[in-house]
Amino acid sequence: MIYFRSDYSQGAHPKVLEALMKTNLEHTDGYGLDMHCEHAGQMIRDLIGIPDCGVHMMTGGTPCNVTVIAASLRPYESVVAAKSGHAYSHETGAVEATGHRIVAMDSVNGKLAPELIDLAWEEYEDEHTPLPRMVYISQPTEIGSVYSKAEMTALAEKCRARDMLLYVDGARLGSALTCEGNDLSIKELAALCDAFYIGGTKNGALFGEALVIKNKQMNDHFRHMMKRQCSLLAKGRLIGVQFEVLLDGGMDSIYFSMAAHANRLAAILRDGLAAMQISFYSDSQTNQVFPVLPVNVVRSLEKEFFFYEWAPEKNGSIPIRLVTAWGSKESDVSAFLNRVRELQKKA
Amino acid sequence: MIYFRSDYSQGAHPKVLEALMKTNLEHTDGYGLDMHCEHAGQMIRDLIGIPDCGVHMMTGGTPCNVTVIAASLRPYESVVAAKSGHAYSHETGAVEATGHRIVAMDSVNGKLAPELIDLAWEEYEDEHTPLPRMVYISQPTEIGSVYSKAEMTALAEKCRARDMLLYVDGARLGSALTCEGNDLSIKELAALCDAFYIGGTKNGALFGEALVIKNKQMNDHFRHMMKRQCSLLAKGRLIGVQFEVLLDGGMDSIYFSMAAHANRLAAILRDGLAAMQISFYSDSQTNQVFPVLPVNVVRSLEKEFFFYEWAPEKNGSIPIRLVTAWGSKESDVSAFLNRVRELQKKA
Amino acid sequence: MIYFRSDYSQGAHPKVLEALMKTNLEHTDGYGLDMHCEHAGQMIRDLIGIPDCGVHMMTGGTPCNVTVIAASLRPYESVVAAKSGHAYSHETGAVEATGHRIVAMDSVNGKLAPELIDLAWEEYEDEHTPLPRMVYISQPTEIGSVYSKAEMTALAEKCRARDMLLYVDGARLGSALTCEGNDLSIKELAALCDAFYIGGTKNGALFGEALVIKNKQMNDHFRHMMKRQCSLLAKGRLIGVQFEVLLDGGMDSIYFSMAAHANRLAAILRDGLAAMQISFYSDSQTNQVFPVLPVNVVRSLEKEFFFYEWAPEKNGSIPIRLVTAWGSKESDVSAFLNRVRELQKKA
Amino acid sequence: MIYFRSDYSQGAHPKVLEALMKTNLEHTDGYGLDMHCEHAGQMIRDLIGIPDCGVHMMTGGTPCNVTVIAASLRPYESVVAAKSGHAYSHETGAVEATGHRIVAMDSVNGKLAPELIDLAWEEYEDEHTPLPRMVYISQPTEIGSVYSKAEMTALAEKCRARDMLLYVDGARLGSALTCEGNDLSIKELAALCDAFYIGGTKNGALFGEALVIKNKQMNDHFRHMMKRQCSLLAKGRLIGVQFEVLLDGGMDSIYFSMAAHANRLAAILRDGLAAMQISFYSDSQTNQVFPVLPVNVVRSLEKEFFFYEWAPEKNGSIPIRLVTAWGSKESDVSAFLNRVRELQKKA
Repeated sequence: MIYFRSDYSQGAHPKVLEALMKTNLEHTDGYGLDMHCEHAGQMIRDLIGIPDCGVHMMTGGTPCNVTVIAASLRPYESVVAAKSGHAYSHETGAVEATGHRIVAMDSVNGKLAPELIDLAWEEYEDEHTPLPRMVYISQPTEIGSVYSKAEMTALAEKCRARDMLLYVDGARLGSALTCEGNDLSIKELAALCDAFYIGGTKNGALFGEALVIKNKQMNDHFRHMMKRQCSLLAKGRLIGVQFEVLLDGGMDSIYFSMAAHANRLAAILRDGLAAMQISFYSDSQTNQVFPVLPVNVVRSLEKEFFFYEWAPEKNGSIPIRLVTAWGSKESDVSAFLNRVRELQKKA
Repeated sequence: MIYFRSDYSQGAHPKVLEALMKTNLEHTDGYGLDMHCEHAGQMIRDLIGIPDCGVHMMTGGTPCNVTVIAASLRPYESVVAAKSGHAYSHETGAVEATGHRIVAMDSVNGKLAPELIDLAWEEYEDEHTPLPRMVYISQPTEIGSVYSKAEMTALAEKCRARDMLLYVDGARLGSALTCEGNDLSIKELAALCDAFYIGGTKNGALFGEALVIKNKQMNDHFRHMMKRQCSLLAKGRLIGVQFEVLLDGGMDSIYFSMAAHANRLAAILRDGLAAMQISFYSDSQTNQVFPVLPVNVVRSLEKEFFFYEWAPEKNGSIPIRLVTAWGSKESDVSAFLNRVRELQKKA
Repeated sequence: MIYFRSDYSQGAHPKVLEALMKTNLEHTDGYGLDMHCEHAGQMIRDLIGIPDCGVHMMTGGTPCNVTVIAASLRPYESVVAAKSGHAYSHETGAVEATGHRIVAMDSVNGKLAPELIDLAWEEYEDEHTPLPRMVYISQPTEIGSVYSKAEMTALAEKCRARDMLLYVDGARLGSALTCEGNDLSIKELAALCDAFYIGGTKNGALFGEALVIKNKQMNDHFRHMMKRQCSLLAKGRLIGVQFEVLLDGGMDSIYFSMAAHANRLAAILRDGLAAMQISFYSDSQTNQVFPVLPVNVVRSLEKEFFFYEWAPEKNGSIPIRLVTAWGSKESDVSAFLNRVRELQKKA
Repeated sequence: MIYFRSDYSQGAHPKVLEALMKTNLEHTDGYGLDMHCEHAGQMIRDLIGIPDCGVHMMTGGTPCNVTVIAASLRPYESVVAAKSGHAYSHETGAVEATGHRIVAMDSVNGKLAPELIDLAWEEYEDEHTPLPRMVYISQPTEIGSVYSKAEMTALAEKCRARDMLLYVDGARLGSALTCEGNDLSIKELAALCDAFYIGGTKNGALFGEALVIKNKQMNDHFRHMMKRQCSLLAKGRLIGVQFEVLLDGGMDSIYFSMAAHANRLAAILRDGLAAMQISFYSDSQTNQVFPVLPVNVVRSLEKEFFFYEWAPEKNGSIPIRLVTAWGSKESDVSAFLNRVRELQKKA
């Protein structure tokens, strides 16, 4: 079986495990108040060039999204997001559980745009309607697309004009930063938004995300919010240790080389499938590929490859999702392309 | 100034005030545990032909919606509603404040339909998504349309098939039940849904709505929920007394004659405007009329009539909302139609 | 039957009903944005000598408490209150429903004191504990006692020292302000706290409380919070109209004369019972009296008088609660005292 | 420096890391739907002798407590706990964040007792008060004491009599089960309560707790609740893998031998200190020891040993907390006792 199931189906990059091994018997303070978390935080501040931002080691992406939103908004304020955004589409109402509406917008290619923010504001009138106060986006999006520098700048300007906070879900941030065509550096991203996170779970960590909060008000008493929202890990240092290894070397670290590797394999997949005249469900630039394949091809492929069907069958075809990761091999990709080629020939 | 602003811009029908006067010095138990509330509850049970349902005297429509939803759903469950539904469009996220998502659907003429419920379910996958468990509709809708018996039956059947609860916001229920073309009686409505309320605020009461809960599980400990959700009035009997008067005589009561009166005047407005080739923003059958008028006509009318602009200007025209109520007079309606006619001639 | 059951068992002072009658057919804007609410608000600003505070017409006491707390606190902050405080003891967890803990302190005579606030802070450590941020007290307390000027000043100073907000539940504020021994004027009270309300429901209104918010941050977007917390009444003017009548004349208004009347009758009850060597459950100074009576005396009295047993039997005696109100008569009080005297003689 | 700071200041037992290493490159389903979680769950069902209970792999203790409570209670229901219970004392109001009150009881030795549950019920009256519905206890308690079989049985019976759920926080369950004097087996514990968890974080895991839910209604849709409450880990298998190792061999597994080791060292500490006539802050039977030492002794000890001061100074003495863990050595304990002996002699 060859796996294109997800970028969190394996454990961690061996160097991550090695570091956990090496630091295992150290005694440290709990709850992220240790030298490893402090050091990792400092590495991140250096990487993004913002010396005084908050950096918090979080257990997962949903905890990041929920804790940031609950910490940032007053009770009557809402979040604007794409309907495909993870916080709306795959978190079981965890944001609403903290009392806030997500105004969910239909979007093109998974991206929010300034016009969609204006459209969301059409629902606002006065004290009878929730006040939109934060924009939630994912970079890359859940279907693999990437905001360009121009797009992100336009969003940030719209947010400033509307007095809204801009928060970026970076579950696969490495993949966005290293993909072909990306023109938005991590420093530029950090400069444009109020908060974002650098996802570890989907890029070589056992688990853990590094949440960066620039906005002072959002960061105020944030550790109280982490505890209240069940996202403060007792052995917080585990996340610090992982990010120390992942980001060692900055833009030359394994964090970015793993992401680049996954992107490279995805590009091969994409190019190979396109060459076979196969169309795609979304315009992904990163480590997810969404070919639309005939049902019988999908059924055959399922016997050798593990992947998800992404949407229901339509006109005899099914969009599937192929995810490459740090652990994927070039041979996996060749095997897949070869098999599709064979199946096409048979047909 | 002539008022078509809303159906809650005046106080109460004189008979309501009279009853409050007459019972004013009675000593009763607080919080709705008095003979008037009990009696009004019994009158309602008789009216709808369901002897064992819960009837609760509520202070307003938002308290009804929020308390019912919070009482009925488990934390991970969501409500499906039209985007124009009051609970989504005009309650400042009060439902989300109790931790539940409203899945808000674009709809035609303000109505939900079985297909839209199916569409909402497309967002559901598994434990990563909120579970749709209740359908919220308004009868009539916020833009005046009315579900027919066939439409309401289809919704109820879809709910049963999907294991969902059906809740009907009856802020203007009298208006739906007495409008021309209505073929759904209050007994039939009650039989089809799990809970609904008979709105008093918008039909001759000072304030107050009578909430009917047939579903035993939804009604369990409901008074605890009322107190928790701030919707238990100390002098609850005030609402009971009002409904005793309003519903005295059943279908021949002032509750229904007031609604019929408002509907009749709205029909005159509607017919008169249609005769002038004026088009409408929505297909209202009840006491709200939404003509689309040229900007300069609207500006002139505003000097003599009080009404709301319902949506922003588009192509030189503005949809306005005219509401008739128990206190509206036929002469108000004639005056309006005459003035429009004059303004049309001038142009 | 003679009633000492509660101060909300009757309707409203006749002048209140009269005013509702007189204004009944006026057309006004909804949701408290009308001339009556504005006028009543101005009357209150004049009365307390604070020209720029927020005044909001609320439907009840629980809505006041809950909306103020939810609007004022960040999610991880808590409220300190006496265990007997209404927000803890009789609101079904409505405060916790908004996500905030009430740190409930055992107290003497129903009052919080600076030492109890310090004691509550002993539960605070760091991000693992909720941060106490508001003090909730009732003036008078739920068992009738009244904070003196010195006591209230000490609480306010403690709050300032601890960076806490001071909120005063004034469900029976009239009773505190007019009771014998009170040395704290409404202006002084207003000057010492961040927010308080003037209770109407328990002093001659049909329903309604006037909430005063001095603190600018607490008042920010408060009307959004009212809608979100289900405490914005459609015909808000009903509350405005009532307070216009109740407070007409300021300290000489019927609001204060009704309260003084009830206090005077309660004092007669208290003195009469004390003269019979009867002891009291609490040291009430206002319109509630809590005599502790032998079980058989209670059983006899129950046949002619309506009152609540306040706590379970203990050593053959039961504390009962007698409440006088604007509608109580001196003859009611004499009848009660005579009956107790007779029952004592028999024994 | 010698560490008695906490039982989560080091990483994991070497065998745990080894297993994570060995399984690192396996591809599995995410979110706990993998063979390791399933296997660990089965091992636990076998260990407790309950074949059909739910077992969920959780990231930490607070997520267990909060998710269980939020999943089990209707909105108006409350939890009864000791004031020293972790869910009340050290979780920043995370339970209240889900809308439920914790009725916090002063207790002796950190334990709840049937009488305290009755006392909590004295706060309940009717719809004006939250309904106590769950009892939360910790085994062992936060200050090291252990419920005997008789005590736990009495609690369980009281819960049944009161129609309450019994939930046991087992953050240090291994320590309770292996301490001297314990007479309550894990099977008996499981039989008596509705849900409990087997804590990994404080006994040799990197992180993770195994939550056992016997009660079918509490377990219904529990995975939805996990996601909603931010406690569903993407690589859930990490927790499964750890529990497979920890519990391999059942009562003879390293889970129990680590706990027994820590208990044994704590007992040596306790006996040694008692022999020096030193008194204790609590009657701990497990791996926490709370000697009360003169301030100057504490100050001297702090130079060589790491521990927490547990409560403020009183009469010249300070209660400190010494925690032993799987990684503690007998020589650590001897060193501590010798140093105290020396300091006593000097005095």
